[in-house]
Amino acid sequence: MDYTEQIISFHNFIADECIPGVSLDCAIFGFHDTRLKVLLLRWKDTSEWCLPGGFIYKTESVDRAAERVLYERTGLDKLFLQQFHLFGDAVRYDREEMWRRQKMPMSFSERWPERTLSVGYYALVDHTQVTPTPDFMTDECRWWDISDLPSLLYDHRQIVTVALQTLRSQLNWQPIGLNLMAEKFTIPELQRLYEAVLDKPLDARNFHKKIMGLHILTRLDERRTGKAHKSPFLYRFDRENYQKALGNGNLSFV
Amino acid sequence: MDYTEQIISFHNFIADECIPGVSLDCAIFGFHDTRLKVLLLRWKDTSEWCLPGGFIYKTESVDRAAERVLYERTGLDKLFLQQFHLFGDAVRYDREEMWRRQKMPMSFSERWPERTLSVGYYALVDHTQVTPTPDFMTDECRWWDISDLPSLLYDHRQIVTVALQTLRSQLNWQPIGLNLMAEKFTIPELQRLYEAVLDKPLDARNFHKKIMGLHILTRLDERRTGKAHKSPFLYRFDRENYQKALGNGNLSFV
Repeated sequence: MDYTEQIISFHNFIADECIPGVSLDCAIFGFHDTRLKVLLLRWKDTSEWCLPGGFIYKTESVDRAAERVLYERTGLDKLFLQQFHLFGDAVRYDREEMWRRQKMPMSFSERWPERTLSVGYYALVDHTQVTPTPDFMTDECRWWDISDLPSLLYDHRQIVTVALQTLRSQLNWQPIGLNLMAEKFTIPELQRLYEAVLDKPLDARNFHKKIMGLHILTRLDERRTGKAHKSPFLYRFDRENYQKALGNGNLSFV
Repeated sequence: MDYTEQIISFHNFIADECIPGVSLDCAIFGFHDTRLKVLLLRWKDTSEWCLPGGFIYKTESVDRAAERVLYERTGLDKLFLQQFHLFGDAVRYDREEMWRRQKMPMSFSERWPERTLSVGYYALVDHTQVTPTPDFMTDECRWWDISDLPSLLYDHRQIVTVALQTLRSQLNWQPIGLNLMAEKFTIPELQRLYEAVLDKPLDARNFHKKIMGLHILTRLDERRTGKAHKSPFLYRFDRENYQKALGNGNLSFV
């Protein structure tokens, strides 16, 4: 099957097997080189970018659909995945314009509903542990710095914006740091993550004092190599204390 | 039109004019007699309780639908209203059992989809300012203490539970106190609200010290009457400082 046949067959499958009028889209965040990144997919044969998204089988929970769709579209699984908002504006985007920008190789089908609501999910990954793989509709998966995004298809820019606001507001009761940081990290690296999510600089001395006061980090007998004896110690999260602090909403320290 | 005719005609209207397979339900919270309450509706001619809910017109945003449905079902409007979760389990409840418990005066129509997703909203009201009014499907609107709820139709018990968890997690960045308290209140009354939402007792001296430290209250030249000169002063929120504190996620003081 060539791409045209594949996508027509896929759209027919969705119309047969999925809940009509409801999609889901996922903002996958990673942290790399002191920057917060989001994973975008370049649509086949175009220079248009979008979030990975898809549809819900008629007999499947929406949460399960989110896991499946992410896996199908990017090859990633077992991610920390949270539903955060239903995007339900009466007109979310110009459907025919999107169809054109995506260079869909067939005309718009009457089997598609007039309007689609989309359930927004965010996922957090340790950037060092994953290698996204494009599916048949995608030429490329690429991490983009959240402060330097390209133009996005649909209302996906707004979905990223709301996902980021959600991360900010949930910093003290969801395991944001635990899921975004590599296994071992220095305190300044963790501070960069908080600065990236909150989009503001933090005072280093204050950050150090407060995070140590939470007792959620274990100092390792290792240093970040490279800078002789001044190189900083590595830490990892004490998962038990971390969970306890989350349960109390107690990670609010900046 | 009698009730049977009314409800058949209403269901046909929904099937014609609304998005199929998606509903919305709303947990309206109030605070009264030091207790957190939720507004429940008793279904016509039954002793079954549920949240106010309804459907989304095909051309209407989901947020706008939530305002309209609340108004139609309870007579309340201009509430502080927030979407908080999409309930999307593959099987949310036994549909035919619900139909029976509601004593629906017609058989289940094929015009209804197999499955319904529901968008959860919560609303906060100053209990002293509102008088809920039942609609034609409802015998009675009643405030129930959240720690003493009756059996609920559908999965509405779970919707209340998740709404409460959301209130707890959002205490420091949504105007929860501002929207639930009457215009004037004493510090102990405000403490009762925080205790009710968090479902745990708070230390009075600590609460007083922390809330005063936020500079979000204005002390009035009035006392709660009744107990001679020991009666406590009344306060009201300083809306400007309150909004500033919310913007910084700074209401986290318990």
